[in-house]
Amino acid sequence: MRKIGIIGMGHVGSTLAHIIIDRGMVDEIVLLDVNQKHLTAESLDFRDAQSFLTHHTKILAGSYRDLSDADIVVSTFGNVNLTAKTGDRFAELKFNLEQIQTMANQLKAAKFNGVFLTITNPVDVITSVYQKTLGLSKTQVFGTGTYLDTSRLKREIGERFDVDPRAVSGFVVGEHGDSQFPAWSSIKVLEQPILKIAEERDIDVTDLEQATKRAAFDVIDGKGYTNIAIASAAAVLIDMILTDSHGEAIVSRYNDKLGCYISLPAIIGREGIVREIHLPLNRAETAKLKTSARSINEKTKLFE
Amino acid sequence: MRKIGIIGMGHVGSTLAHIIIDRGMVDEIVLLDVNQKHLTAESLDFRDAQSFLTHHTKILAGSYRDLSDADIVVSTFGNVNLTAKTGDRFAELKFNLEQIQTMANQLKAAKFNGVFLTITNPVDVITSVYQKTLGLSKTQVFGTGTYLDTSRLKREIGERFDVDPRAVSGFVVGEHGDSQFPAWSSIKVLEQPILKIAEERDIDVTDLEQATKRAAFDVIDGKGYTNIAIASAAAVLIDMILTDSHGEAIVSRYNDKLGCYISLPAIIGREGIVREIHLPLNRAETAKLKTSARSINEKTKLFE
Amino acid sequence: MRKIGIIGMGHVGSTLAHIIIDRGMVDEIVLLDVNQKHLTAESLDFRDAQSFLTHHTKILAGSYRDLSDADIVVSTFGNVNLTAKTGDRFAELKFNLEQIQTMANQLKAAKFNGVFLTITNPVDVITSVYQKTLGLSKTQVFGTGTYLDTSRLKREIGERFDVDPRAVSGFVVGEHGDSQFPAWSSIKVLEQPILKIAEERDIDVTDLEQATKRAAFDVIDGKGYTNIAIASAAAVLIDMILTDSHGEAIVSRYNDKLGCYISLPAIIGREGIVREIHLPLNRAETAKLKTSARSINEKTKLFE
Amino acid sequence: MRKIGIIGMGHVGSTLAHIIIDRGMVDEIVLLDVNQKHLTAESLDFRDAQSFLTHHTKILAGSYRDLSDADIVVSTFGNVNLTAKTGDRFAELKFNLEQIQTMANQLKAAKFNGVFLTITNPVDVITSVYQKTLGLSKTQVFGTGTYLDTSRLKREIGERFDVDPRAVSGFVVGEHGDSQFPAWSSIKVLEQPILKIAEERDIDVTDLEQATKRAAFDVIDGKGYTNIAIASAAAVLIDMILTDSHGEAIVSRYNDKLGCYISLPAIIGREGIVREIHLPLNRAETAKLKTSARSINEKTKLFE
Repeated sequence: MRKIGIIGMGHVGSTLAHIIIDRGMVDEIVLLDVNQKHLTAESLDFRDAQSFLTHHTKILAGSYRDLSDADIVVSTFGNVNLTAKTGDRFAELKFNLEQIQTMANQLKAAKFNGVFLTITNPVDVITSVYQKTLGLSKTQVFGTGTYLDTSRLKREIGERFDVDPRAVSGFVVGEHGDSQFPAWSSIKVLEQPILKIAEERDIDVTDLEQATKRAAFDVIDGKGYTNIAIASAAAVLIDMILTDSHGEAIVSRYNDKLGCYISLPAIIGREGIVREIHLPLNRAETAKLKTSARSINEKTKLFE
Repeated sequence: MRKIGIIGMGHVGSTLAHIIIDRGMVDEIVLLDVNQKHLTAESLDFRDAQSFLTHHTKILAGSYRDLSDADIVVSTFGNVNLTAKTGDRFAELKFNLEQIQTMANQLKAAKFNGVFLTITNPVDVITSVYQKTLGLSKTQVFGTGTYLDTSRLKREIGERFDVDPRAVSGFVVGEHGDSQFPAWSSIKVLEQPILKIAEERDIDVTDLEQATKRAAFDVIDGKGYTNIAIASAAAVLIDMILTDSHGEAIVSRYNDKLGCYISLPAIIGREGIVREIHLPLNRAETAKLKTSARSINEKTKLFE
Repeated sequence: MRKIGIIGMGHVGSTLAHIIIDRGMVDEIVLLDVNQKHLTAESLDFRDAQSFLTHHTKILAGSYRDLSDADIVVSTFGNVNLTAKTGDRFAELKFNLEQIQTMANQLKAAKFNGVFLTITNPVDVITSVYQKTLGLSKTQVFGTGTYLDTSRLKREIGERFDVDPRAVSGFVVGEHGDSQFPAWSSIKVLEQPILKIAEERDIDVTDLEQATKRAAFDVIDGKGYTNIAIASAAAVLIDMILTDSHGEAIVSRYNDKLGCYISLPAIIGREGIVREIHLPLNRAETAKLKTSARSINEKTKLFE
Repeated sequence: MRKIGIIGMGHVGSTLAHIIIDRGMVDEIVLLDVNQKHLTAESLDFRDAQSFLTHHTKILAGSYRDLSDADIVVSTFGNVNLTAKTGDRFAELKFNLEQIQTMANQLKAAKFNGVFLTITNPVDVITSVYQKTLGLSKTQVFGTGTYLDTSRLKREIGERFDVDPRAVSGFVVGEHGDSQFPAWSSIKVLEQPILKIAEERDIDVTDLEQATKRAAFDVIDGKGYTNIAIASAAAVLIDMILTDSHGEAIVSRYNDKLGCYISLPAIIGREGIVREIHLPLNRAETAKLKTSARSINEKTKLFE
C-alpha cells in the first residue's frame, strides 16, 4: 500500500493532492487542514470527481493519527499573502512557526516514521525546525528548496534556445530566497556549457537570471500565489520516494559542512536522501554558496 | 495535432488546463482571460512546471485569433461569487451574458469550427446562447450539464454501498439547476436496480438525493467554489471528442422535442454529439423532465 | 510499497509485466520462469527500457522466496501450443497441472498471503487447484475467467452499433470455455436492452455471439497465441486489488451454490473478492449456467 | 488528430503499437504487415483489449493508402532470426532491402509527407535507403540508432552506482553496430564525469562497455529477439515528434560532414530533426566516430 498525508489544503496543498489523485500515485491520501469546513469541502470535491478518473484513491479528511503509517507526509500550508505583500518569503516565518510546533508534536505523537517533505516557506529554516521537532533523521526530512527555481531557469533557457526545458541540465543552488544563484558552471544546453554558448551568441546570463526572477514575481503578483509548478515539483519528489527510484533532484537537504538545510543535488529514494551529490562549483560559486548558507544559518538561529 | 482553447482562467479554467497539460492530452493549449496580468501569471506558472512533467505541451496566453484551428474551445468563465452568495446558478446569468456576446462574436470572426463545450452557468441557457451566437450546428455545441450531478450521486451511492462510484450506472437528468432529478429507473448498483436494492435494505432514495444536494452545497460553502470535479468531468468529455471515442455521457445537448438544451445521455465524438440516446424513463420521470425543460425554456426566452 | 509477482514469462506474462512496468503500477515486480536464460533475457530487456520510461520500477528475476511479501501473485504460464493445436483449452490441463503442484507448494512455503490471480488455462479448474494447494481462502484466489470473453463481445457489439466498447454493459458468464454464454438479459447498449434494440434493427444476437467466437479463434490462429487483451484484462483486476477500488468485474470466483469456480460478477478489492454480485438471469440463462457449472465440476473432479 | 502508421507486426511492431495504444498517444493507428492473417489477428487482439483501457484509439489493419495523412510512419519489420543466427545486424540487410523498395514506393505513391522513423536494421543503412526512395527531406527521416545502446549503458552504469538510469547522462555514438562506442567524455553520473568517478573508485569503463554488450547479446540469445527496450525508445521519439517537444535524443540522423546517417544527438520536433547538436568529443573519440562513419558509408555504397 502507498499512503501519503498532505498538511494544508491551500492552493499548493489542494493542487498537489489533485495531481496525486489524478495520476493515481497512492492508494490512500489523508488531507489535513486547520479549517474543518474547508477541509470537508476539498475532500468532497475530490470524491465527487472519482467517477471521472482512471484511478481509484481512498481520500480521507483526516487527522494526525491517520498518518502513523503514511509513507510520506508533506507540509504545504503557509500564508502566501504575507509573502505577496512583502515580496519576502521570510514574512511568513513567524506565522508558520507558530503552527509547526503543534503540528509536528502531533505527528510525532502518532509515531510517524516515513519521509517528511516541506514546501512551507521559508523552506530551509522550516525544514530544519521540522526535523528537530519531529525527531526524525536528517535524511528523512527535506524540502523542495530551489527545485522550483531550477525549473524556472530551465523554462527561461528553454524558451531562449527553443528547446524543451527537460533538455536543459544544471541547478539553481543555495537558499530558496534572495541569496540563491544559478550554478552556471553546472548548466548545460545543447550539450554545451551555457556560459560557452551564451558567449558565442552574445547572451548575457545575468539577464537570464533576472528574467527568471521577474517571471517568478509576475506569477505571485498576477495570481496572488503560485501552485502549479511547486506542486508539480513536489509530485516528482514524491514519486521518487514512493518508487525508491534513486533519481536525482535538487532539494533543501541538510549539509553537514555548511551546518544548515540548503539546496544541493541528491539521490532520492524510499528512505529520503539516500545519497548526497557533490556538485562541482567554481571558486566564485563556492563563495556564494557559503554566503547563502550564512544567510540561512542566521535566520535559523533566531528560532532555536 | 490536437489543439484546445480554454476561455477563463478562474478556478475551473485553471484546473481544467492543469489536467489537460498534466495528462498530455493536447499538443497546444491556448489560454484566454479578460485579465491579462492574471493570464500571464497562469501561463508562467504552467510553463514553470514543464521540466517536472511527463508530457510536453505548447502553452499560449492567447487571443481569439489563435483559436481558428482549435479542435475544441471550452467556456469556463463565470462569477461563482454570485452563485455562492445566492445559492442560485441563475444569479450569474446577467453577468455572464454580457461577456458572451462579445466573446462569441470574436470566436466566430476567427472562423472557429470545432466543438464548443460550455461549463459557464446557468449552463443550459448559456449553451443555447453560445450556439446561436457562434452559428455552429447544435451537435457541435454542448454543455457539461448534469454530468457533475450524476457523478455526485454516484459518489453518494458508492459510499453507501461500499463500491467504486464507477461501478454505479445511471443518470441525474434535466436542468443543471433546481429542477434536475435522478432518473431512478436508470440507476443500477451491484447489477440491481437501485429502487429494488434500496427497498430491500430499507434505504430511502430521496434521502440519497438530499444528501447529494447537501454535499454539493457544502463544497461551495466550504471552498467558495468548486473546481476539481467539474474540471474532471470536462476532461472526460474532451478526451471523448479528441479521440472520437463514441463514448457515452450525459451532457446538456439540444433536444428537439423539448425545444431546449437539457441534460440527457449522448454518444460523443469528434463532431460533438454524434448520436442522441433515448433514455427510457417511467411516466413520473417523463413528467418531471418536461417540467425541467419548461423551466429552462422560460429562462432562455428571457434572453432571446 | 506495492509488490507483485508474475509466474511465467511467456507472451502473456511478458506483456502483463510490460503493462505493469510501463504504467508504473507497482514499486517492485518479481518475474519468474522455469527457463532461467529466458527469464534473464526478459528482465534485461525490461531494465534496458528504464531510461525511456516515466516511472521507476524495481525489476527482479526472482524466485518464490521473493514473493513472501507480495500483494499479488499472477499465474500466467501455460502451453498455448496445445490449445492452438486442438482448439480446446483443456488440452493444456495435464501439462499445466504437473507444474502447478510444485509451484504452489513453493509459494506456500514462502508464506505468501496476498491475492492470487490465475490466467493459466483451463482457468476455472486451475484456479480451484491453486486455491486448494495454496491453502488460501476462496476469496483470495480467483481467475480472469470470462472477463476477456466479455470484452470481446463488447468489441463486437461496439463495432456493430458504432459506440465505444466501454459504453456496452453486461457479461459473458460461465466457464471460460465451450459452455460459456452471453447473459443477453444483462447486456445493454445505448441505454437499451440489447435484445430489444437487436429486434428493432433486425440483428440476430446469436450471430453476434458467433462472430465473437470466430474472432477469438482468428486471433489464436493468426498469431499463434493471444496476449494483449488478456494481459490488459489482468491489469485492470490488478489495479482494482492494489488500490482497493471495490470496482466491479466478472471473474472466475468460487460459487458456493454451484460448487465450483465459475465466472460471475464481483466487487474486487485488496482482499480479493470483497463481495459477490448476484446477476439477475432469466430462466433459460440460469439453466445454461448450471450446465456450464456441471461441465466445470466434471473436469475439476478428474484432478482431485 | 494524431495519426501514426506502423509497418511490420513482428515483436517490435506489435510491442510499439501496444505502448502507443495503451498510453493513448494517438487518435488513429494504422497497422501494416505482409502477412494478412497475422495482421488481422494482431488488430483483433488490440481491439479486444479496448474495453479494459483508459484511452480510445481507432485501430486499423490498413494499407499504404491509409498513411497519406499520417503524422508519423515507423518501419519496424525485419528478420531478427538472421541477426540472432549470425550475431550481426547486417545479416538482415539483403532480406530487408528487398522489401523496402516496394514499401517505400507505395508510401511515396500515397503522398505521405510526415516524419519517417526507422527501427529496421541495419538501421543506419536502411534509413539512408528509405530517405532516398521516399524522396523526403533528410530531416524528416531518421532512425532509432544508438538510442537503445545508450539506454543499455545507462542501465549498466545505473546498476553499478545504484542510481536511476535516468540520472545518467551522455551517449553511445556512431553506428548501431560493431563500430559504435560510448563517448565517455560526454557521460556523467552523480554530477561527475564518469571517467573521473570511475578512476576514483577503480572501475574500468571498458568493463562497463563490455558488460553492456554482453547483456545485449544475452537478451537476443535468451528471448530470440528484443522488443521492450527498443519499442520504448521509439515511443519516446514518437512523443517528441507528436508534441513538437524539441526534446533531445540521440538518433541515427544524416550528418553532412560524415556523409552518412549516424547516431549523434539532436533536437526532435514535429518536422523531425529540428536541430543538430554538436557533441563535444575528445580527439580519440572524434577519430573513432570517423572510423564508424567509414564503416557505415562502405556498407551503404553497396546498395546504391
